[in-house]
Amino acid sequence: MLPPVDLRPPFNITRSSHVRLTVADLAESRNFYVNVLGLVVTEEDDGTCYLRGLSEACHHSLVLEQDESGGGSCKRIGFRVFFDEDLDIAYDFFRARELPAAWVDVPHQGRTLHVSDPIGTPLELCATMETRPRLHIDFELHKGAHAQRLDHFQTFAPDTYALCAFYGELGFRNSEYIAHGDKLLSAFMYRKGTCLDLAIVENAGPALHHFAYTVSESRDIFTACDFAGNLGYGDSVERGPGRHGPGGMLFAYLRDPDGHRVEVFNSHYQTIDTEIEPVRWDAASLSTNARWGFPALEKWYFEASSFVGVPRIPPAEKPNPMTLERFLLEQSAH
Amino acid sequence: MLPPVDLRPPFNITRSSHVRLTVADLAESRNFYVNVLGLVVTEEDDGTCYLRGLSEACHHSLVLEQDESGGGSCKRIGFRVFFDEDLDIAYDFFRARELPAAWVDVPHQGRTLHVSDPIGTPLELCATMETRPRLHIDFELHKGAHAQRLDHFQTFAPDTYALCAFYGELGFRNSEYIAHGDKLLSAFMYRKGTCLDLAIVENAGPALHHFAYTVSESRDIFTACDFAGNLGYGDSVERGPGRHGPGGMLFAYLRDPDGHRVEVFNSHYQTIDTEIEPVRWDAASLSTNARWGFPALEKWYFEASSFVGVPRIPPAEKPNPMTLERFLLEQSAH
Amino acid sequence: MLPPVDLRPPFNITRSSHVRLTVADLAESRNFYVNVLGLVVTEEDDGTCYLRGLSEACHHSLVLEQDESGGGSCKRIGFRVFFDEDLDIAYDFFRARELPAAWVDVPHQGRTLHVSDPIGTPLELCATMETRPRLHIDFELHKGAHAQRLDHFQTFAPDTYALCAFYGELGFRNSEYIAHGDKLLSAFMYRKGTCLDLAIVENAGPALHHFAYTVSESRDIFTACDFAGNLGYGDSVERGPGRHGPGGMLFAYLRDPDGHRVEVFNSHYQTIDTEIEPVRWDAASLSTNARWGFPALEKWYFEASSFVGVPRIPPAEKPNPMTLERFLLEQSAH
Amino acid sequence: MLPPVDLRPPFNITRSSHVRLTVADLAESRNFYVNVLGLVVTEEDDGTCYLRGLSEACHHSLVLEQDESGGGSCKRIGFRVFFDEDLDIAYDFFRARELPAAWVDVPHQGRTLHVSDPIGTPLELCATMETRPRLHIDFELHKGAHAQRLDHFQTFAPDTYALCAFYGELGFRNSEYIAHGDKLLSAFMYRKGTCLDLAIVENAGPALHHFAYTVSESRDIFTACDFAGNLGYGDSVERGPGRHGPGGMLFAYLRDPDGHRVEVFNSHYQTIDTEIEPVRWDAASLSTNARWGFPALEKWYFEASSFVGVPRIPPAEKPNPMTLERFLLEQSAH
Repeated sequence: MLPPVDLRPPFNITRSSHVRLTVADLAESRNFYVNVLGLVVTEEDDGTCYLRGLSEACHHSLVLEQDESGGGSCKRIGFRVFFDEDLDIAYDFFRARELPAAWVDVPHQGRTLHVSDPIGTPLELCATMETRPRLHIDFELHKGAHAQRLDHFQTFAPDTYALCAFYGELGFRNSEYIAHGDKLLSAFMYRKGTCLDLAIVENAGPALHHFAYTVSESRDIFTACDFAGNLGYGDSVERGPGRHGPGGMLFAYLRDPDGHRVEVFNSHYQTIDTEIEPVRWDAASLSTNARWGFPALEKWYFEASSFVGVPRIPPAEKPNPMTLERFLLEQSAH
Repeated sequence: MLPPVDLRPPFNITRSSHVRLTVADLAESRNFYVNVLGLVVTEEDDGTCYLRGLSEACHHSLVLEQDESGGGSCKRIGFRVFFDEDLDIAYDFFRARELPAAWVDVPHQGRTLHVSDPIGTPLELCATMETRPRLHIDFELHKGAHAQRLDHFQTFAPDTYALCAFYGELGFRNSEYIAHGDKLLSAFMYRKGTCLDLAIVENAGPALHHFAYTVSESRDIFTACDFAGNLGYGDSVERGPGRHGPGGMLFAYLRDPDGHRVEVFNSHYQTIDTEIEPVRWDAASLSTNARWGFPALEKWYFEASSFVGVPRIPPAEKPNPMTLERFLLEQSAH
Repeated sequence: MLPPVDLRPPFNITRSSHVRLTVADLAESRNFYVNVLGLVVTEEDDGTCYLRGLSEACHHSLVLEQDESGGGSCKRIGFRVFFDEDLDIAYDFFRARELPAAWVDVPHQGRTLHVSDPIGTPLELCATMETRPRLHIDFELHKGAHAQRLDHFQTFAPDTYALCAFYGELGFRNSEYIAHGDKLLSAFMYRKGTCLDLAIVENAGPALHHFAYTVSESRDIFTACDFAGNLGYGDSVERGPGRHGPGGMLFAYLRDPDGHRVEVFNSHYQTIDTEIEPVRWDAASLSTNARWGFPALEKWYFEASSFVGVPRIPPAEKPNPMTLERFLLEQSAH
Repeated sequence: MLPPVDLRPPFNITRSSHVRLTVADLAESRNFYVNVLGLVVTEEDDGTCYLRGLSEACHHSLVLEQDESGGGSCKRIGFRVFFDEDLDIAYDFFRARELPAAWVDVPHQGRTLHVSDPIGTPLELCATMETRPRLHIDFELHKGAHAQRLDHFQTFAPDTYALCAFYGELGFRNSEYIAHGDKLLSAFMYRKGTCLDLAIVENAGPALHHFAYTVSESRDIFTACDFAGNLGYGDSVERGPGRHGPGGMLFAYLRDPDGHRVEVFNSHYQTIDTEIEPVRWDAASLSTNARWGFPALEKWYFEASSFVGVPRIPPAEKPNPMTLERFLLEQSAH
């Protein structure tokens, strides 16, 4: 059902690390992430704002870049590698596959490599960043939903199986997955020993469906929504609060001022061991609800942030998820 | 805007007390209330099950009565009076207004009076019940969402203002209310020093829209949904989890196996003082969402448990709430 | 065991309302209550700071008064009466018993009466206050432990039974009590329909042992301690976090910069009904721990804020509680 | 200050895995871990009980073995390695250092290696176990404090620096540490990408000071204590609830019926990256309190479970922690 995983991958990606977004109004986006999610500004200038979660010691997990032409796109998703040498091996790996790979200078990061996966998802790899003190017990500095750390990305791919196979070569394993018959719909892949670093969902891609920050407690899920509501972003609460079946965590999804989707959720179980089989969820659609809760809106299934300059390829068959809209129509027909 | 309140009412109703429901399958309903909500069975026999919340010392706040003909109706909502003498005064009060009033024998309760308000809502008044130990710190006996105590009822009335005026005569005060222009839509009335004992909403009534149990913490709101989902009642989660504007509390609404609607919510602020003005919420509809969250389903607005043998009277103008169904249609039209 | 209670008291005290403390450094005390407890400043001037909890609509529940001569005393504890006329009846009641009673002008309050109970505890009664909006869902304004509302006082009396009898005449009922044989040690008395408005404990009195604010969730108990620690008041956490047996709630006790003791706790069950018997706890001492947790320090049992100008009378027999100090000595002796 | 760490260790230990304890009364110990902590019994027979946390997919993280001669000892602490081949390399590694290493057959585990570290701590290494479904969202099966997974061990060593150096060779890194001047007192070491797998504290060792299970929320810390109290283990709550400085998490320590110490705590921040410096805490003692809370009892500092058949070696200098006993004596001397 699932493609093979190389447990001794050629280089060692350790975790999802950061995401670079373009935004139309930097002050507005900064306000959203600082006061609703509770991220901390590590550093900022006229055009760029670097943010991190309360328990993060690295310089940034979210980079907002002012874009006069409109915002709403994702520049890159970033992963960490363990050693600096892993970058060199990665460079050779992507080149050998005739995939883009280029060295770049990036502020506040060590040596940095830009590569793209086979469908064009632009990745940024580095082994080190500048560090800052963790602020998770500096309670007097906490705001909003007290987001703790970036956990994972969810992206669209026109062929989940094919892209899952590629990341399997890089050592990404599956914690859980959603399949319909022998068709793989969603793959929840990880490197770091929890459920997820990269979730791949079949739809027109590449595109960034969402990135996710952890919060500490059930209450914080509500707090994210409450601060969104109180600070003028009430319409941004697109889905939830609810509970996922796959993974089992509580969630809420918010759309930021540019439409980028961010999830807050209350963390994951531990993976690590090799003998544990991925958990299969049978579903005709891509819903991730647990055993209660309404389906997501159609836009939750189909809208995503494009990657700058990267065309999106539709899947062979358009996904036909059970949307909230269709669910209500079918209910009223009874 | 609001009708007058008699702060020295003729008799002293102290709080909402209990509700009597008919159910098609007593075992199934018992399972729902014990294992999803976490109520405790005080006593039961073949045809009746008496339940109470974990922090309740009275014999029952919920009475389930097996009804071979189908269930799904409400027999009565119960209120407590402070003194036994209050019952006698109440008897005279209702008789003087040519409203039904009759003495009845009811198991596990002291002297009990059955009366009806002007639209026919059947009420049950008593001053005492048998008591049992509170179980709120007997953690080893707790189940489901750990519901603590019955808090309030929400009923339909064809004319909110008129019924609000009647209960004002009985000393019920308004904590908050929803109005559209000079039209009163919902009145949140209390006797016991928190926000609510009786919420009156304009719609075809009398009918019981819901009754509500308190829970202790945010997490319990999710727990109610999680147990519903795990125990086969996932579809029963009709609305939420979310946050009310009026009152400000977190909520989830569930439908029991007969369609009776029960709310779990995380309690209320204190009222008591006479100088505090009721809080007005301007709304074209009856929604009680805070500044985030989707509108409720149409059925949440219109479905309610009828009172046994009491015809429902439609309001002069059919309510036109912003339902989730209409909201999605209007969104897709953009 | 317990003295009689007049369920039709001569005048209607509805709840504990506010407390007036003298403080040596107003800015420092304000910092403690705003940033650790999370109270809101309603109004302040050079010499006085008026604070209220997040869900309180009245002008103040805590009044801090700068005292050049040192602070650390309590001026008065305040109760609300329901009607203005209750004040007149109260005046006559106290005069008839040859107890102090005087009309005073107090800013931000309606007509106000100063009286003293038989052991000299200075009380302040009023029927109304200026009001302000409740801020319990203005999350963006919340700080510290998010204290919601003043709930109760605990005072020392040289004879618990005698003072309990006096407050019983005023309609205060017992929710729970601690007794040793036929000796009443602590009486937990209420007017407002929860467990407590006034707890009376036998020791040299009158003195204010503590006043208590409610918080919403378990987490807030820790939050109070965490903010105390982070803001330089770590040594102020005198007892807890722990759980009470009587009442069953979670607690932490903090000492403010002048040594006044404030409790944060996660609220109470509902009382109201007349047929429920007070819960007896048998104890050789005054401990209120549930079935786990260390005894309190000796100073927790014996230190309290004196009332300005009121001498303290020792009890006939000095209390001999199981203190933490003695507990450890006895343990090490084994 | 800290000894070097080999970031390319000879074999790959991935995480702390399980602990084997001897107990005097298997039924009693089972009751404690199932009903207070909330562990799940995977399998049991007359002499052995295998337990796991709710989110664990491996067969056991706690093995209780009936010991007619009295219980109270630890047989081994277990770690996982990533590949089966890691076991062979480990075998050679320990043999080359003339440390014990032997292959053993262990039920429910793959190929298993017994080794001892230089001070005699008996370790058990394996690469695989039988698996079982995770039960973290099977809420209807949850009990007690809902312990989620084993996280770490804390052991005594006569020379913290020396043993820290040994585990550094095995790739264990330091997240935080406590030092007094240039003396290393406690080393918090990890392999799995959170703060801890093995904490080493200077005292007569080897001995097992405690093992720790994660819980999900603040409330669960109280729940562990509450269930302990209600089920007759109230005296087992030895320290807490409180908050650690190092790591920053909430904790409570309980002693099981044989005196084995188990911690519940609300999880950790993420580590992983190589550029982050360990956090230093300066302390004259071994306390791990945050900025509030009383010191731990003397027995918390000195009592620990011996390893079966392994003599304990005292440190060169007896630790002189600030115990609660000494703290109170010094307070009363003022």
